[in-house]
Amino acid sequence: MSEAPRHILVIGIGAGDPDHLTLAAVKAMRRADVFFVLGKGAEKDALTRLRRDILDEHLTGPYRVVEADDPWRDRTQRDGGRYASAVHDWRHRRADICERLIADELAPGETGAFLVWGDPSLYDSTLAILDDIRERDTVAFDHEVIPGVSSVSALAARHRTTLNRVGRPVHITPGRRLAQGYPEDCDLVVMLDGHETFTHLVGGGWWIHWGAYIGTPDEILVSGPLDEVADRIGRLRAEARERHGWIMDTYLLRQGWDGPQGASRPAGSADGSADGPLG
Amino acid sequence: MSEAPRHILVIGIGAGDPDHLTLAAVKAMRRADVFFVLGKGAEKDALTRLRRDILDEHLTGPYRVVEADDPWRDRTQRDGGRYASAVHDWRHRRADICERLIADELAPGETGAFLVWGDPSLYDSTLAILDDIRERDTVAFDHEVIPGVSSVSALAARHRTTLNRVGRPVHITPGRRLAQGYPEDCDLVVMLDGHETFTHLVGGGWWIHWGAYIGTPDEILVSGPLDEVADRIGRLRAEARERHGWIMDTYLLRQGWDGPQGASRPAGSADGSADGPLG
Repeated sequence: MSEAPRHILVIGIGAGDPDHLTLAAVKAMRRADVFFVLGKGAEKDALTRLRRDILDEHLTGPYRVVEADDPWRDRTQRDGGRYASAVHDWRHRRADICERLIADELAPGETGAFLVWGDPSLYDSTLAILDDIRERDTVAFDHEVIPGVSSVSALAARHRTTLNRVGRPVHITPGRRLAQGYPEDCDLVVMLDGHETFTHLVGGGWWIHWGAYIGTPDEILVSGPLDEVADRIGRLRAEARERHGWIMDTYLLRQGWDGPQGASRPAGSADGSADGPLG
Repeated sequence: MSEAPRHILVIGIGAGDPDHLTLAAVKAMRRADVFFVLGKGAEKDALTRLRRDILDEHLTGPYRVVEADDPWRDRTQRDGGRYASAVHDWRHRRADICERLIADELAPGETGAFLVWGDPSLYDSTLAILDDIRERDTVAFDHEVIPGVSSVSALAARHRTTLNRVGRPVHITPGRRLAQGYPEDCDLVVMLDGHETFTHLVGGGWWIHWGAYIGTPDEILVSGPLDEVADRIGRLRAEARERHGWIMDTYLLRQGWDGPQGASRPAGSADGSADGPLG
């Protein structure tokens, strides 16, 4: 009576540059019968288009995409426990949708794929949702994860910097948590910051490497002493968000550092210009 | 009188699985005239072989590899300031070698490449060495960084887990620093740990996801409650290091967590077996 298992591939596709796709990701995409895409609004439109471009480039035959709308999410909760419970609630409703996609759109023995921006292990909900669905025991599947280039690695590469200094830790944190404090003596990488939390750190002797839409044609990079460039990053964020309807940015904060090569004003960056480090 | 600049590519090639190479990395490799390889001993032999396999697979014509021996490194210093100064000293001598490679093995206008395991931004010295050489102002070059799949992402993918829990930070730390303490309320990723520092945390209610030689045919994975699997990881490390002559391992530590799907004993892992999660 037992059916052939459904297979799920969770494929990291890099942070925006289609060439950040790994060979393993391309091979995995070619094994998939169906691609599942969840999203909402302008961000969904832009990211779905990028995903379709990737599929068009690497798949020779026709392929099937099933799109679904992301459930509504309560973004008003910023407090620790309430924030986590709002996210859990949202993930649960997302899991309802994914459970239906897997059960209805995938025949036993078929393979479905989720294409995940960056790396599936970092601030993405797909793996937690699959665990949630598996616990329900309503539809049998196995799953496999293909790691990707994270937006953190992409940010560091574009700024030609390391995340850590010799022998020291790196602390990757959501913006919301940065506002509550951070451990000393490590470099900070901030993700999911909708509120420009870096402004809280002005005056503390920080250097910032900031980037938005990294790896895409819309990429914006700013690097410099935080006190000098914070305002400009704020303006660029507001303009870009207005122009695109959404923004995805990440930044690295480093205290007690004079910038690359010990220069306090590297050409083209410390003045807050939005040029990439490669010009 | 000015010469055409030399180009340097710092290419992340993933944590060991040749398919974790990105399309950008393959394209970059094809632009290189020379590949520089530094290393020493059994580790160098194994990793150089892996690099050569990658080059053989993706380059159609002949290519030039220049190998150099890594300088001796003082690994007896474990104390913070002395450790950092031993590393800086080693990097400086490594920079001497790389400076010579760039000046002697690369004609003006030519492109040289360093193939870096994992991602160049995370606990790798190549970018710092290039900054060091640039400061000396003896040989002119520009450089570009191609991000890679980090061993951290590869570890998480093989264990099909996320690095972070909802809304919480991830702290990536060298083993040496873990022994000195860690911030509360975040997941810990430990790298460069030659001393099994995880044993210090036995009794604290931790879950460990451990992996060695990740992505290679020699991969070993163990996952389970730390108190139950710590001894076995210690034995496996010792055996593997004896067998290969070197070991490269990474692990994720999570406190107050019952394991995947809330199960305290997931099949094939909590008993300390060394099977992969897909095995």
